[in-house]
Amino acid sequence: MTDTVAFRHLVRATRSVRRFHEDRAVERQALVELIDLARLSASGGNKQPLKYVLSCAASMNARIFPCLSWAGYLKDWPGPRKGERPAAYIVILGDTAIRADCDRDLGIAAQSIMLGSTARGLGGCMLDSVNRRELRRILGPLHGLEILLVIALGTPREEVVIETVGPDGDIRYWRDERGVHHVPKRQIDDIIVASYSD
Amino acid sequence: MTDTVAFRHLVRATRSVRRFHEDRAVERQALVELIDLARLSASGGNKQPLKYVLSCAASMNARIFPCLSWAGYLKDWPGPRKGERPAAYIVILGDTAIRADCDRDLGIAAQSIMLGSTARGLGGCMLDSVNRRELRRILGPLHGLEILLVIALGTPREEVVIETVGPDGDIRYWRDERGVHHVPKRQIDDIIVASYSD
Repeated sequence: MTDTVAFRHLVRATRSVRRFHEDRAVERQALVELIDLARLSASGGNKQPLKYVLSCAASMNARIFPCLSWAGYLKDWPGPRKGERPAAYIVILGDTAIRADCDRDLGIAAQSIMLGSTARGLGGCMLDSVNRRELRRILGPLHGLEILLVIALGTPREEVVIETVGPDGDIRYWRDERGVHHVPKRQIDDIIVASYSD
Repeated sequence: MTDTVAFRHLVRATRSVRRFHEDRAVERQALVELIDLARLSASGGNKQPLKYVLSCAASMNARIFPCLSWAGYLKDWPGPRKGERPAAYIVILGDTAIRADCDRDLGIAAQSIMLGSTARGLGGCMLDSVNRRELRRILGPLHGLEILLVIALGTPREEVVIETVGPDGDIRYWRDERGVHHVPKRQIDDIIVASYSD
């Protein structure tokens, strides 16, 4: 794939998805291949401080789910109901003995995983609102690893569309009466501060 | 593109490249399209705090270049010589009034830009060792924006290959006598802490 249009399409299609076909399994091998994309991605100073816990087991998924908070701007929606919950999770951990601040590496790795998910017909959501204390209890001893992020994964069961941020600058996403999720993005001219060309 | 193999190939091909065909121009439109990939990528709470300065002008490039330090592990190599320098730069800025810590968003955006560069036959390197004080002087008033990262871009003029981290755990990249750049990556089993499947 050296196709600019195809890659743009992949990026556009990679939206944060919060409702899934819970009954459509995600295989362990798929999770390993997604982690491998993160493994092959750039890391600051090549230090590679990130580690991973994978779950596609119904029993473990049921324990992870209550640790997560969903869609902060949708005040009336507590999160996906039974049947719409993620079929798998990737918990991203940071080895703080290798690097104190892993956030940049985390973003790089998470984006590789998200794009790779879309490429294989899955969808996901990066979840930062995590009850880390409870998740740590569930996962057991993590030996100096910090819980950084949870990526929820599954076959998407909702439509997400990109909108344009209006003059009021409101960036909050919303869900319409048909259940379609709308995400306002800033316009390109609003994010280019300066441009130098011959 | 919904092809897992093709995307994996793209990720593998997206290496940090530090020597370029400086005489092969990168058009402003290409830089705008790369920024657009970042614009369409996920952002924590959808806040979108990142902004960008683009340069594909020889005069501006010549002013940006001295602000950069290259390849910390290659002690005998001060950086690309004339003729091998980047043909373009994307400076990523964080609007700290929108979000105090932009590092995770930065990683997401930078990875979209890097993958998009490879998809169009370019290559690049995320540079964090930046003389920010001097670069800020060159760029002029930035109105509350923080310089987060510089991405150098151009047509690659070096080969980069992935190696496996050995038993000693040394993650430092090296360049061989043929000028090939070798990057050791941790093995997949070393980064999966636990895995739960039915």
